[in-house]
Amino acid sequence: MITHATGIPISNLAQDGALIQIEWQDGHRSTFHSLWLRDNCPMPTSRHPNGQRILESARIPAGIQPQSAALRDGQIEIIWAPDGHLSRYDPAWLRAHCPCDEHRESRRRHPILWSADLTGALPEASYPRVAGRPATLRRWLAHIRDYGFAILHDVPVQSGMVTKVVELFGYVRETNYGRLFDVRAVADPTNLAYTGLALSNHTDNPYRDPVPTLQLLHCLASSVSGGENTLVDGFQVAAYLRQHHPEPFDRLTRTPLQFQYADMETELAAETPMIRLDSRGQVSGIRVNNRSLQPLDLPLAEIEPFYDAYRTFAGLLADPRFQVRIRLEPGDLICFDNERVLHGRTGYESSGIRHLQGCYADRDGLLSRLAVLSRS
Amino acid sequence: MITHATGIPISNLAQDGALIQIEWQDGHRSTFHSLWLRDNCPMPTSRHPNGQRILESARIPAGIQPQSAALRDGQIEIIWAPDGHLSRYDPAWLRAHCPCDEHRESRRRHPILWSADLTGALPEASYPRVAGRPATLRRWLAHIRDYGFAILHDVPVQSGMVTKVVELFGYVRETNYGRLFDVRAVADPTNLAYTGLALSNHTDNPYRDPVPTLQLLHCLASSVSGGENTLVDGFQVAAYLRQHHPEPFDRLTRTPLQFQYADMETELAAETPMIRLDSRGQVSGIRVNNRSLQPLDLPLAEIEPFYDAYRTFAGLLADPRFQVRIRLEPGDLICFDNERVLHGRTGYESSGIRHLQGCYADRDGLLSRLAVLSRS
Repeated sequence: MITHATGIPISNLAQDGALIQIEWQDGHRSTFHSLWLRDNCPMPTSRHPNGQRILESARIPAGIQPQSAALRDGQIEIIWAPDGHLSRYDPAWLRAHCPCDEHRESRRRHPILWSADLTGALPEASYPRVAGRPATLRRWLAHIRDYGFAILHDVPVQSGMVTKVVELFGYVRETNYGRLFDVRAVADPTNLAYTGLALSNHTDNPYRDPVPTLQLLHCLASSVSGGENTLVDGFQVAAYLRQHHPEPFDRLTRTPLQFQYADMETELAAETPMIRLDSRGQVSGIRVNNRSLQPLDLPLAEIEPFYDAYRTFAGLLADPRFQVRIRLEPGDLICFDNERVLHGRTGYESSGIRHLQGCYADRDGLLSRLAVLSRS
Repeated sequence: MITHATGIPISNLAQDGALIQIEWQDGHRSTFHSLWLRDNCPMPTSRHPNGQRILESARIPAGIQPQSAALRDGQIEIIWAPDGHLSRYDPAWLRAHCPCDEHRESRRRHPILWSADLTGALPEASYPRVAGRPATLRRWLAHIRDYGFAILHDVPVQSGMVTKVVELFGYVRETNYGRLFDVRAVADPTNLAYTGLALSNHTDNPYRDPVPTLQLLHCLASSVSGGENTLVDGFQVAAYLRQHHPEPFDRLTRTPLQFQYADMETELAAETPMIRLDSRGQVSGIRVNNRSLQPLDLPLAEIEPFYDAYRTFAGLLADPRFQVRIRLEPGDLICFDNERVLHGRTGYESSGIRHLQGCYADRDGLLSRLAVLSRS
């Protein structure tokens, strides 16, 4: 997101104690602190050629100030007191890192929130093109980053293809379910996913920390009636909740919940709120899964308000105006952010065959591949 | 952590609107809310035999109350109004889930915080025993859970053994560095880990979301002088910071930092505070890595207070009274929680050979294996 504004000349450079003030010819002013400037010195004794910092930031003296600061050969040159260390900065780099509110906001990327009306314009692509053309792969990965999901058509109807799709951008997260798992109705299911029952909108593996951040589902067979998939943008619904029901929203961000899964060989447990906020107060993760939610471990007085809040949130998550409904046909695959997009399915009869293969992966690999493909 | 207190008889059972009050013969009183009780109904129409909830919790009517509540055949039997649904509860299960403060606290597990004086009593074991005896494996895994790390001796000095150790309890987290990676000095290092430079105490891969929650390092060769490993309990140092420097502590929990790593094929970025709190306000994760910390993206006014806080925290992290120093010899392996225990190393000369193999894994598999091994 950091775009280097190039070529805006500096009209004035001034020092005020530990502050360096730059006036640009377009009228913008930037003020940098000496601690920040010294810490970001790009010279070889501060930075390794690979870009990693050698300088120990915490050892920069608290009161550091420039001995001199000047424009020279188009660079800003600072000599630091008292050790005489020389730092040279590219003005375009400094402009791109201006700490003013406007520039800081321009460096943020925001998700594209969606509701049911996305149905007519689903983020989708065709597997042969995604696998063969870097620009198409880049667009498909950007959909997942921005919308939290994307569809892939024309994936060969072969067992194991779901992990081949992961290899286009990252790494499979292996779990107790294997590198991949088959989603179909079986006898004695250890998980309700392996039945024909309807599943309310949920995120997967809430009982696991770290939770898998991406999930892929590849349809190999679908001759049943029912079994349609629903997708809901948890960030959109959380934003709606925050605006219209602030108390329930707040409660769901601060109530720790326990999730658990156990079978003969596995016993997984994790604790997390249903809505997680990052350190900016933005919604950064949703974990909803009624099947594996454990008995609330809360003081008595918090029980009723929690259920009130959960009822409100779950009602919105089940509301058709927020849902996209997709019928996966053989060869279709969906990839979604498991901390943002909830998925569910309608129930189905066992008179036909419905067979999906799923696997987990992580966002880090996807975003890395996207960033490398986006290098100019 | 939930231990079923068994055999404490009930001396009185009473209903007060939506509340069910139980008086136990040892004098303890428990009060349960109808919403909670209905939600945790163990009957087959509410719970699948595999333990997963079938009942949709959010659809339980807000004003639900018992029509009757009685002790019958040692079970608590509730008939719900208005649908007449019958729930039967095991008193021992209810007692184990009492929502009073004392019982709730007894269900918490706390990490064992440590400082330099752990050096004389390091959590360690021998590989052949850990691989061959479930009880020894259980103890070794419990050390990692409780102390955030443990040492393994007598691991065969063979390439690839580090992933064999992971297979004792979980799954390798594959990344751009591979399923495993070699830590030794190389020409043109893409990462400072691959030099002989000293590395200040840090956590790995802060630029990755989700971050790997476990790291393993296996020593294959060590004929250099220097290159000793340091370990620091980040939770201990954070607790000290919280107590003695509350303002810096608070600032480090709420200041978002950007971390990045890039090479020809990879470009990873993540944003997180240095100290992460869970929804109970407890420290749940530490992310410190000066090499890959990006320029602070903060309002000018927050720059100086941030560096003050970072200087205080980094000073404590480098303080010998918090550090355990270990010299890994060939055959030694350390496994540590990468969100809790920081590791570093002293610099070394390239006149000898120092060769570690590392890999990443996750806590979920470890805690699952530990839980299954702990089943009685």
